[in-house]
Amino acid sequence: MSSFPGNAALRLPTPYLLFLGDSVEGGYAKTAFGLRDWAGDKCIAEYRLAPGTVTAGLPMMSPAAAYAAGARALVIGVAPSGGGIAAAWVPALVEALEAGLDLVSGMHVRLGDVPQLAAAAAKHGRALIDVRVPPAGLPVGTGRKRTGKRLLTVGTDCALGKKYTALSLANAFAERGVDVDFRATGQTGIMIAGGGIPMDAVVSDFEAGAAEVLSPDAAPDHWDVVEGQGSLFHPAYAAVSLGLLHGSQPDVIVVCHQPGRTEILGAPGYVIPSLEETVELNLLLGRRTNPAIRCAGFAFNTGDMDAAEAEALMDAESKRLGLPVADPIRGGDAFKKLVDNCLG
Amino acid sequence: MSSFPGNAALRLPTPYLLFLGDSVEGGYAKTAFGLRDWAGDKCIAEYRLAPGTVTAGLPMMSPAAAYAAGARALVIGVAPSGGGIAAAWVPALVEALEAGLDLVSGMHVRLGDVPQLAAAAAKHGRALIDVRVPPAGLPVGTGRKRTGKRLLTVGTDCALGKKYTALSLANAFAERGVDVDFRATGQTGIMIAGGGIPMDAVVSDFEAGAAEVLSPDAAPDHWDVVEGQGSLFHPAYAAVSLGLLHGSQPDVIVVCHQPGRTEILGAPGYVIPSLEETVELNLLLGRRTNPAIRCAGFAFNTGDMDAAEAEALMDAESKRLGLPVADPIRGGDAFKKLVDNCLG
Repeated sequence: MSSFPGNAALRLPTPYLLFLGDSVEGGYAKTAFGLRDWAGDKCIAEYRLAPGTVTAGLPMMSPAAAYAAGARALVIGVAPSGGGIAAAWVPALVEALEAGLDLVSGMHVRLGDVPQLAAAAAKHGRALIDVRVPPAGLPVGTGRKRTGKRLLTVGTDCALGKKYTALSLANAFAERGVDVDFRATGQTGIMIAGGGIPMDAVVSDFEAGAAEVLSPDAAPDHWDVVEGQGSLFHPAYAAVSLGLLHGSQPDVIVVCHQPGRTEILGAPGYVIPSLEETVELNLLLGRRTNPAIRCAGFAFNTGDMDAAEAEALMDAESKRLGLPVADPIRGGDAFKKLVDNCLG
Repeated sequence: MSSFPGNAALRLPTPYLLFLGDSVEGGYAKTAFGLRDWAGDKCIAEYRLAPGTVTAGLPMMSPAAAYAAGARALVIGVAPSGGGIAAAWVPALVEALEAGLDLVSGMHVRLGDVPQLAAAAAKHGRALIDVRVPPAGLPVGTGRKRTGKRLLTVGTDCALGKKYTALSLANAFAERGVDVDFRATGQTGIMIAGGGIPMDAVVSDFEAGAAEVLSPDAAPDHWDVVEGQGSLFHPAYAAVSLGLLHGSQPDVIVVCHQPGRTEILGAPGYVIPSLEETVELNLLLGRRTNPAIRCAGFAFNTGDMDAAEAEALMDAESKRLGLPVADPIRGGDAFKKLVDNCLG
């Protein structure tokens, strides 16, 4: 994958020093683990405070040592249980700013709201980057067809694997020698990609315009694989999904689904749409900005099933639907067929 | 129409003193004229500076006199040609704050960004209200079906009469004794209604939730007539339209259209959808949050046509489509039929 090109999307300083705080529970360190797994080339070291025990398996370095080794940002890789920035972390974060590192956070609370961090960043000329905050100056959409090829992951619901699927497809494209960028639309994805736009935080009037900025004109054989958000069927988040669909004007969609989920997350009484309905509605609306849009297949999240059961289901659904069905985590031939059909 | 009930939407202090600045051209005073025409009961007086000549036909009063007569806010009713707040206006606006009036503005520039206004408001404990700024603390949508009835105006494009149609329908409902609220979603509408939510300025994740807040639970025979925004077919603004459609969960839509317009505003090459397509897509998506949604008819903006031509076209289209077609500005029997079918 090429590096994130210059445009109005967020760009993060890299490589990273992963900050693990004083966590003793791995469950709070999902961001750090995601970065290790998907952006290992951007992660130089980790930094942990006593009495913490969680590790991402990277060398332990102080901020000064990490800076000397090339690091340019400390990324907060743990979600504190209270949601805010723990007081015990502040001296370490100030130390990082003093050492020449910018700070990157995906937390709801803004880094600049902690007075010691605001003061230290100002004093040392360092940036406090909240990846939940969209870049300023996003334009309204134009609908103009851009050059290059685009894939968008969409879903029957939210939180069922659209980011994981997009990352897996982008990696698979790259392994086949395809010129490809993963385009991140959520906080973890942005840290992994080193840039992107948090689409759910963009003002509605600029939603499609932000998606246009996120995947700019490119070479005819270049692919942008865009991380989907929400679902057109979600009564809370469909606006995000439609702006992203219109603005990213995908040539190809891959529909993500979790077998067995029957109700939309957070919306009691709202049934999960059928796969056929999901394809049909995404193609109907997507045609407005890209008449050539097509569905290349389905990504199932089968983490709750055993291997034989998952394989039997995906085989049967693939035959029924006439398109590849794969679980990107399980990979295998089914996933190869999905990749073939995306590029096909 | 009843007054705007208490919820998380914006609420403006009323009645108003209309500020006309030093304008000599009526074209800049659309907001003042809209308020005079649609919210005359909220407008006590007007205030004009030399050498201005524009009038909304109201009594001329100083801020102190208007306050004594009951006014509680000065509304900036003119758009300055430069877009900002003219230096010549500032002393008059400070005078209004001193007299006990809050300031209400629909301009892009924020009132609080003018240091003299920020200082005077703080000193006198007055509010500076920018109606382009959504209220804080909007929730995400739930999709829960609310009590009461709702009508939403939708469109084949933006800027073709969705606000005017909603206001006309709300007034017609009230004249028939129906308990009705006009629900404003844009800056001028918000000033007219004395409250509302600027839907295009809401962060995408909260778009449907904002629309839910805008039209809360109501008595079974109460109607909310919701001002539409954008169009599901607009490549820039469809996200706004879908969040509003899902969140307002209308029982009835009225499709607004400008005959003769062939291309979407600001999106070269995008053809205006047919009326049938527009009905079909709005009903398809609207069913997700209100399975009983129906289209009651069409509002045509025929300002460019002569009366005979407009009537002939609307008659023919009404026969072809099997639903009332009316121009709310022309009114007449056609509009009565549209109102009948909305309430029907």
